[in-house]
Parts: sequence; structure tokens; C-alpha cells
Amino acid sequence: MARPVIALLTDFGTRDHYAGTMKAVVLGICPDATLIDITHDIPPHDMMTATLELAASYKYFPAGTIFLVVVDPGVGSARRGIAADTGDYRFVAPDNGVLTAVFKETPARRVVELTERRYARATVSRTFEGRDRFAPAAGWLAKGVDLSALGRSAGTIQQLTIPAPQLTDDLLAGEVLRVDRFGNLVTNIDRKLFDKFIHANGIEISAATHLIGRVVATYAEAAAGEVCALFGSTDHLEIAVNAGSASDQLNLSRGAPVTIRKK
Amino acid sequence: MARPVIALLTDFGTRDHYAGTMKAVVLGICPDATLIDITHDIPPHDMMTATLELAASYKYFPAGTIFLVVVDPGVGSARRGIAADTGDYRFVAPDNGVLTAVFKETPARRVVELTERRYARATVSRTFEGRDRFAPAAGWLAKGVDLSALGRSAGTIQQLTIPAPQLTDDLLAGEVLRVDRFGNLVTNIDRKLFDKFIHANGIEISAATHLIGRVVATYAEAAAGEVCALFGSTDHLEIAVNAGSASDQLNLSRGAPVTIRKK
Amino acid sequence: MARPVIALLTDFGTRDHYAGTMKAVVLGICPDATLIDITHDIPPHDMMTATLELAASYKYFPAGTIFLVVVDPGVGSARRGIAADTGDYRFVAPDNGVLTAVFKETPARRVVELTERRYARATVSRTFEGRDRFAPAAGWLAKGVDLSALGRSAGTIQQLTIPAPQLTDDLLAGEVLRVDRFGNLVTNIDRKLFDKFIHANGIEISAATHLIGRVVATYAEAAAGEVCALFGSTDHLEIAVNAGSASDQLNLSRGAPVTIRKK
Repeated sequence: MARPVIALLTDFGTRDHYAGTMKAVVLGICPDATLIDITHDIPPHDMMTATLELAASYKYFPAGTIFLVVVDPGVGSARRGIAADTGDYRFVAPDNGVLTAVFKETPARRVVELTERRYARATVSRTFEGRDRFAPAAGWLAKGVDLSALGRSAGTIQQLTIPAPQLTDDLLAGEVLRVDRFGNLVTNIDRKLFDKFIHANGIEISAATHLIGRVVATYAEAAAGEVCALFGSTDHLEIAVNAGSASDQLNLSRGAPVTIRKK
Repeated sequence: MARPVIALLTDFGTRDHYAGTMKAVVLGICPDATLIDITHDIPPHDMMTATLELAASYKYFPAGTIFLVVVDPGVGSARRGIAADTGDYRFVAPDNGVLTAVFKETPARRVVELTERRYARATVSRTFEGRDRFAPAAGWLAKGVDLSALGRSAGTIQQLTIPAPQLTDDLLAGEVLRVDRFGNLVTNIDRKLFDKFIHANGIEISAATHLIGRVVATYAEAAAGEVCALFGSTDHLEIAVNAGSASDQLNLSRGAPVTIRKK
Repeated sequence: MARPVIALLTDFGTRDHYAGTMKAVVLGICPDATLIDITHDIPPHDMMTATLELAASYKYFPAGTIFLVVVDPGVGSARRGIAADTGDYRFVAPDNGVLTAVFKETPARRVVELTERRYARATVSRTFEGRDRFAPAAGWLAKGVDLSALGRSAGTIQQLTIPAPQLTDDLLAGEVLRVDRFGNLVTNIDRKLFDKFIHANGIEISAATHLIGRVVATYAEAAAGEVCALFGSTDHLEIAVNAGSASDQLNLSRGAPVTIRKK
């Protein structure tokens, strides 16, 4: 039997012991778990980046993977902890919308509230539920405990509002949702929507006030330092600079408008 | 049989190959080890942060875990390498006090000096004993070699002086020991000492010259941007800002005095 | 049978999901792989750092380890993907010279081009071949697929020019190739060449315009703050400061000349 995989995504950083301590708790419950970091460097409390990074990554994991997601501005408050099953995957997270982008693609079949105290640590710190509530829940799922044993049905869960692009006859107006380490500006305009708009139209693309020269298939097609547009690895339009940072060069970051106009 | 767990804590960072190379050496000796990073981002040569991070984390690991701790300003010098057994855990580290905070909670039953050359690499670099001496020792322990085989009894080992809070009738004077990635200022005042002092007293808490409004149970209880005090996940008093960084907002870091006075 | 080890070296950073997603793909193909990070923090597109870090680390891994190396300024372009076998190790990487420093020490016995589509993901993104082409190739090798099944013989592969030191009768002229997290300035002068030059000579060592006082055996031999020279863990001459950063203190980085002259 394959060893269970637990993938972690948090805003804990790697400077403090927090991520390691969560893994310790998981291994104490399920010693043969394989632990994989998606990232711990979500900017503190940044729900939008968290849900988008998770959505970009989860579907590449083997079926059966359990995602332990702790970006939790409301730690210790009345917000609930949840565990969700989408069929191929299970997710453990605070009920604060951090799973929104995943559920848009793959609706949850079952969501429970983490109410069963026996599947948490005996003492639950009100500042570190990742260690005392979420890590144990993921560990027990990996160990074979059924989702429904973790607590009662969660009912309605929190949703995050992810900015959607606006489409009119003459204009497709999106925005930058994510800036990656290379400075690529990833927008909320996916290839399908883009193709629908440009069908039979000459277009021009702008990022804020900058006119973007052309759409290329790959970074290397642009000249060094040239600002270009292309569809990245999640099939969303991004503004990029070959061998450079579009974010630095255009001085743009999240929220920057990206628009496509008929010529 | 469960796979042996080796937990790593170093100041090597993750930019260079050093941490990966230590893991390579461990796996060469004990291929079925599970390697868990606590952190590699201890500030270079910062013994105080190292010992406190280790103490905050180790007790959440499964019994049998081996800790490979390399924060080592004296690499290559006459300072010794040691391996220690506390009953539930074993530790491999330079003899420079980095285990002090652990041993305050859980005294070592046995400490040996890493003198047996057969459990080090054939050539020991004087600038990277983590690779050539400490990683092999951890690997061999994981492989089943007894602690006592690694070398002779270590006798007296180095201690680090960890600032202790001062308690008088009217005043409890501590200081900030650790600033985490969220900017929380974690002090050396634990809940027990705090409770003893405040018993039947009205109090006021100061961090340097800043009067702290109140003690809350969790970050979310404070208003956004409010500076507050609370007991964090290791049950020590910390100064925090809900949805912000207390370190940035108050411009305080390690060593900042935190005092509690009778009103 | 030992679990296959896959070691990763990329410039993806740890802030985005990229490294985690590559691991997901590997585990989907070979669930019992042990995944070890060498580093993901190679500066973006920095081939020189990538090849040197890899060369400093690979030989400490167990025989049989597969290295998944993705530093790839030409992603999506016509540059090829390759897999190479050196006898003890296998490597999967873009054909852009990133394996140069390894092959200088351990020539490849076989190099194939990654042409077999069945060992890539069904759709290969032109901006993330690490996920869609390189990770699957490493996963299949770990799963037992023979190197030759991945594609046809690669023929001549790209080489990176690594600056070599110049040796004359009176002068040994090298340069800084790498600055590590501690600020040590690691040069291209190895101990063998150094010993050959200094044999029977009085010498003086300079880093740019700074005269370096002496060669020590270990950092701790120098006084705190003293600039010194020593042979580091890869047996190359480095300029270092005990308990400080030589890079900061001398304001030097990669490319800085380091020369050794007869007195």
C-alpha cells in the first residue's frame, strides 16, 4: 500500500519552528506519512495568495493526498476548523475561505466541522491551532480515520471573493492576482475567455498604463528585457519580461488592471 | 517498525547546498530515515534563537526522534561534538550550549563526546563538521548504533545563559527573547510566573516605553492594529498586534524589556 | 530494497508552489521516492551558481540518487531536455550547461534527449517544463525505467564556461565564484593548485585591493572580525571573516579577483 501523502501550505515561513512542529505532530500520529511542502511563504494572512497557490498545485498531487492548509488570521477566534472531501483529495483548513479557489474547480462532496476533541491534541493553544487541531486532523485522516468521524456536517462554509474579469463587447478587463518569484504578473484572465474575446478581433493589451507589445508562446520568444504577454503554467494570461522581472520593470503588483481592447 | 525520524535545526539557510548535503550524508548511512526540517533559518551563529526554537519544537516529535542541531560559530576549533540522550529523544550537536533550553526541561541522561572516528566521514573538513561529523553521527544513531559507541562520556558540557525574568513584590521584569515571522515579541515570562505575580493585583504591562492595553486570549480578540499581550503557543507572554507586526509597530526586538507592575 | 532518492535543485524559490508541484508529479509516478531539496533558492536564471552548488553537493548523496535540476532561462524554447548517467548518479536537466561542473569531475557515460512523449505529462506547458517534462522523467527513472527509454542519444551537449584561475611563475590569479549565506567568498582556486604555487614561496594574498593577512585552518582561528583566507568544505580557497561576513565587510561579491603573489 502506498504511503499517505500530506501536502502543507501555510503562511508560517521557514524561519520559525512552526511548520516543523506541525510535521512532528503529524508523524506522531501517522509515522509513515510522506510530507511535502507546497509553500510556507504565503505572505502573512494573505488569503488570496493562499487560495490561488493551492488551486495551482493540488491537482498535480496523487489521488488520496491530504492537504493541510493553515493561513489563519482568525486563529483562536470562533471561526471553525473544517475538513473537506472532493473525491480525489481531502483538505484540512480553517473555515475562512482559503479553499475557495479549489472548490470552484472541484466542489466538495462532504465538509465537516472539526468538533471531535479526540482527534485534536489534549490542549488546544488559542494561538497555534495548526499544531493542536489541524495537524492532528490531517494525521488521523492519513492514519485511516474517516472524514465523518472528525465532526458534524459543516453546513455553509465561508467563501472568498476572487476578482473576476469583466467582459464586454469591446473590452476584456482583468487584473493581476499573483506575482511570482520571477516577477511574472499572473492575471485572472484564462485562455478560454481570452480566446472567446479575441476571436476575429485585432486587440491591444495594457497592464495599467503600459501597452504590451505582443502575445508570445514562451518567455524565450521575447527579446531580453522585452515586456510581453503569454499564457503561463495555469493557462492564465501573464505579463512577463524575458530574463527580467515584469513586476519590477513596470512597477506593478497585485490588483494592477490588465485590459484587452478591440483595436 | 517505524522509520527513524531525524529533525534538523541549523543556521545554514536554504540558499546554499549545506542542509541538503547533510541530508545526503544521513541517507547514505540510513536510507529509510524520515528527515524533517525544523528550520535552517536561524540567524547565523545566533545560539539564543537556536536553543529557544529547538526547545519550542522538540517535544512535539515522536519518541525516538534524533535531533541534528548545527549552529556552530566554533566550527573547526577545539570545541567538542556531542550526542545526548534524554530518554525519549537523542540530540547530536556541537558542545556550545545550543541544547541548554532543552536540558532545562528534560535533563540528559547520558552525554558522549563524538570521538569515535569510525562514525565520522573519513575526512573531516574544519569548516563543515555538519557534513562530516554531525550528520554521520545522527545517521548511525538512526541506523541503530548505540549512543555510547559514539565516544567517551562527555563530562561537563557548555551552558548558554538564557536571561531569566526578575520578580520582586511590585515588579515582574522580563525581556523579549524571540521575534517570530509575524512580528510577535515572545518574552521569557511564562504563564505560571505571571499568574503568581498578578494574583490579587491590578497590573500594568509595558514593553520598553509602551503601555500595553490588555491581556487577551487570542490575537483575534484585539482590534485590528491594537497592541495587546497574550500567552502564545509555548505559554510565554508575548506582545502582539492583531493583523500586524508588534515588532514593526513598536520598533522593538530581542532584548527589549517587558515589565509588569502593580498598579 | 532501498527507496529511490530524488534530489532537487532549482531557482523556483519557496514562495510559489512550483517546487511542491514538481514533487507532486514525481510522487504520482513513483510514490515511494524520497525527495530531498538541495536548494530552490538559486538566484533566478543564475547558471553559474546552479552548477557550482550541484557540484559541491551531489557526491555526498547515496549511489543511485537521481538529480532533478531545473534552472532554465530557456524554458519553452528549442533548447532540449536531457537525462545523463555518470555511473553512480543520474541527472535530469535542461541542456543549457547546468551540469558542466559535475561532468568536469565525473564524465557522463550516456546522455539522452528527453524525446519520448510517453514519459512526459500529456500536455507540456511552455512555461513550466519542470512540472511537465523534467519531474516526470525523474519519476520514471526512479520507478525503474531505463535512461535509454527516455529518448535518443543527445550527442554534443551545452557547456558553461567556468572561469579558471591563471597561473604564472609569480602570480596565481583567481576570482570569487560563489558567496555563501555567511558571506564567505569562495574562489576557483583549489588546494592542489595553491600548494603547487606556494611551494617554497613566501606569498601574499589579495582580494581585489584588500591584502589578506594569513591563511588559517578554520574560521575560529582568526580573531572576531579578522579577514582571513582558508580552504573551505569543497577544498577551494575562500576569503572569510570569523563571526562576520567577508562579502559585507570587503564589499565584494562574485567576480572579485583574488590573487596570490610571490613576495
